[in-house]
Amino acid sequence: MTYSADRAGATLEIDLDAIVANWRRLAETAARAQCAAVVKADAYGLGAAKAAAALAAAGCGMFFVATLDEGIALRQALGRAPEIAVLNGPLSGTAPEFAAHNLIPLLNEPGQIETWSQFVEQAPLPHRGRGRGPGHQDWEGEGIRRFGGEAILHVDTGMARLGLTQAEFDSLMQAPPPIGWRAVMSHLACADESDHAHNEIQRARFAAVCERLPGTPASLAASSGVFLGPSYHFDLVRPGAALYGVNPAPGKPNPMRPVVRLQARILQVRQIDSGESVGYGAAHLMDRPGRLATVAVGYADGWLRSLSHRGYGRLAGRRVPLVGRVSMDLTIFDVSEVEPRFAHPGATIELLGDAYGVDDAAADAGTIGYEMLTSLGRRYHRVYQNTAPA
Amino acid sequence: MTYSADRAGATLEIDLDAIVANWRRLAETAARAQCAAVVKADAYGLGAAKAAAALAAAGCGMFFVATLDEGIALRQALGRAPEIAVLNGPLSGTAPEFAAHNLIPLLNEPGQIETWSQFVEQAPLPHRGRGRGPGHQDWEGEGIRRFGGEAILHVDTGMARLGLTQAEFDSLMQAPPPIGWRAVMSHLACADESDHAHNEIQRARFAAVCERLPGTPASLAASSGVFLGPSYHFDLVRPGAALYGVNPAPGKPNPMRPVVRLQARILQVRQIDSGESVGYGAAHLMDRPGRLATVAVGYADGWLRSLSHRGYGRLAGRRVPLVGRVSMDLTIFDVSEVEPRFAHPGATIELLGDAYGVDDAAADAGTIGYEMLTSLGRRYHRVYQNTAPA
Repeated sequence: MTYSADRAGATLEIDLDAIVANWRRLAETAARAQCAAVVKADAYGLGAAKAAAALAAAGCGMFFVATLDEGIALRQALGRAPEIAVLNGPLSGTAPEFAAHNLIPLLNEPGQIETWSQFVEQAPLPHRGRGRGPGHQDWEGEGIRRFGGEAILHVDTGMARLGLTQAEFDSLMQAPPPIGWRAVMSHLACADESDHAHNEIQRARFAAVCERLPGTPASLAASSGVFLGPSYHFDLVRPGAALYGVNPAPGKPNPMRPVVRLQARILQVRQIDSGESVGYGAAHLMDRPGRLATVAVGYADGWLRSLSHRGYGRLAGRRVPLVGRVSMDLTIFDVSEVEPRFAHPGATIELLGDAYGVDDAAADAGTIGYEMLTSLGRRYHRVYQNTAPA
Repeated sequence: MTYSADRAGATLEIDLDAIVANWRRLAETAARAQCAAVVKADAYGLGAAKAAAALAAAGCGMFFVATLDEGIALRQALGRAPEIAVLNGPLSGTAPEFAAHNLIPLLNEPGQIETWSQFVEQAPLPHRGRGRGPGHQDWEGEGIRRFGGEAILHVDTGMARLGLTQAEFDSLMQAPPPIGWRAVMSHLACADESDHAHNEIQRARFAAVCERLPGTPASLAASSGVFLGPSYHFDLVRPGAALYGVNPAPGKPNPMRPVVRLQARILQVRQIDSGESVGYGAAHLMDRPGRLATVAVGYADGWLRSLSHRGYGRLAGRRVPLVGRVSMDLTIFDVSEVEPRFAHPGATIELLGDAYGVDDAAADAGTIGYEMLTSLGRRYHRVYQNTAPA
C-alpha cells in the first residue's frame, strides 16, 4: 500500500543523496578496498530498490542482502550488472534459484558447501569457476555478469553465528571443493568498540585464513570495521548501517550524514489540569496544568514502546518531551512550552532529524540505531530525496 | 513481496479459525452489546484483509482501523456491507474520502467536529443523519450501507490521548452539531489492571456523558474492558488484541486461543568450545562446550532485540535457550541438550507457539503482546489456517 501525504499520519523523508555521500565517504576511508553496500532487510527499512539504484548509479558494483527473496527482488530492481551476494546462503533446494537470478551465495557451513559443490558440478555453467580465485565472468563488452557458480566462503573468527569453525575450515583445506571463490569473508563481533581486544584476535585469525586462500579477495569489515584502520580493510568492505546514518564509531563524532527525517502529524491538542494522568496505565501524572499534543505515530510504526516516557520531539524549534506510554498508533508530547499558534492539529512534530537522530532515539529506547531503522515505517508517507541524475 | 515457503527463513502460521473463535468468545462475554473487531495496524500485523474477511463471514458487522489509508484498504477488501470506523478521524481535507469509501470517522476534537459538520452540511447526502441517534441507512433489501454523514463522537474520560475534554464536551452540548452520531465512545487507560481505581472513575464519567446523549449507542470497552464485567459493556465493545490471542486479563489464565505460530529455519549448527564468546559484543561466554544453532530470524523480522539473552525456542520438544544478542537477521540458540539428529540445518525451531506465546515473548522482551504482534514479520512465509467456508 502506498500512503499519500495528505492521508498519512507521518512522513518519512529518506535522503538518497546522503546515502550516496556516506558510501563515498566509506569508500574513501577504505580506499584500497572495493566498497560494497549492504542493503539487507530492505536497506535497513529504508527501501532496498531505491537505495541500491542510487548507489549503483554512483558506482557501487556489489550489494549484500540477507535472504534469497531479497536477492531476487534486488536483481529485478537493479538489472543484470551489479553483483549481489546473499548472506544467509542457500537453503535446501534453492541453488537453482541462485543461478537463475545470478546471485552469489555465502557458504556458511559444510552442508551448504557440499550442496553448492554438487550443484556447480552438475549445472551446465558456461564459465564455471574452478579452484581458487574469482570465478565470475563478464560478458564481453556488455558489463553483464554471467553466472559462474562462484560463491563467498564465510569463515567464523569469533562471532559463533554463521561461518565455518576453524576445524571445519581445516577440513575444507584438506579437500578443496570445485567452487570458484568470489571472496572469503568473516564478521567482527565488537567492531563498534574500537578498543575491544576481540577485534585484533579476529583480524589475526582472519589473516591466517586468507593466507591459505592466496588470490582470493578477502572481506572482514562492515560499517564499524571500516573505521578500525587499514589493517581491517583487506580487499572488500561491506558497510550497511553507516550508509543510513548510524554512527559506526559510537562515542566519537558521527562521520556520516543523517539520512532520515520523520515528521508526525498532530491529531489533537488538549488542555490538561495538574494531577490528571496521561495514557495507558495512567502512568504519567501532570505536575502542573499544560497542553498535550497527540501525534499519529505509535509502536506499530516502529516508534518503539521502550521510548515510553523517554525522548523528545521538536516543534517550532523547541524540544517537546514525550509523555506517558507509546501506544500502538499514537504518541503524546507535552507542548506546554510551545506557543498555541504552532501547536495545533495538522502541524507536525519532528520525531527524527538532525537534532535528534536514529542513534539518539535508539539510546533512549535502550537499543541501537540499526533496530530503530529496521522498525520504522509501515504506514508512513515516504519521500525520497535524490538530486543525482537517475 | 510474497515469501515462498522454501526460500523464507521462517514461517508464520496465523490461525483464522482461532481469531473467529476468540471473537465469538468475546461476543458471548459481552452478550448484550454488539461486538465489533479492531483490525488496525494490519490486524496487529497479522493481515487485516484476511482477518476481517473471516470475521465478517462469522457475523462481525463492524470494524475499527486507525487511519484513513487502512479504512480504504479494508473497504476494498470487504466490499460495501460492513461498517468501518477510523479511530484517528479525518485529517484536514480528507472528509470527501471518508464519504467516497463510506467510512465512519471518529471525531476526536473540536476541529474535527467543526470540519465534519461543514462537510455533511454541504455534501449532497441522500440520507443525511441529523441530531442525535444513528444516522446510517441501509439500502433496502441489499444490506449495503450507504454513506449518511454519521460519525462516532470520542469523549476522553481519563486517557488524555484523543477525545473531547470534559469542557469541550460541555461546549458541544450547548450547541449540538448537525451530525448523526453512530455512537459515542471513550477508551479505558487501565483496563488490563482489573483492580485499578481508574477504571471505575472512567466508567462513571462515561456513563454521565452517555446520559446526555440518549439513544446514542455507547462504547467503552476494548479487549480488557470486556472482562471488567457487564457494567463496562454498554452497547458496543471493540476488542482487538484479544482476537489475536493476547491475554486481556494479565495475571489470570488466558481465555483466548493462541493465534500465531512462528517457526524459524536453522541455517547452521556448530560446535563451540568452553570459553568462546557468542554474537555481537562477545556478550555471551560459553561456560562449557556445546552446540549452537543459528536461525534466520532477527530483529528486522520483529524478534525484538530486547530478547537478547532472554527467552527460549523449542526444538524436538525441548526448550533451547536464546544466547547472545539478537542480530538483524539471525538469532542463536543453544541446542547442546538436543540430539544432533534433530538439530541440523533445515530443521525448524519454534519461536512462538502454544508453549511460548506472544505474551511470554513480550514479557521476556520487556513489552506487551501487542507490540510483539505488530512487530512481527516482514520476511516470513505466511500460512493462514481457515477451515470455515469462505
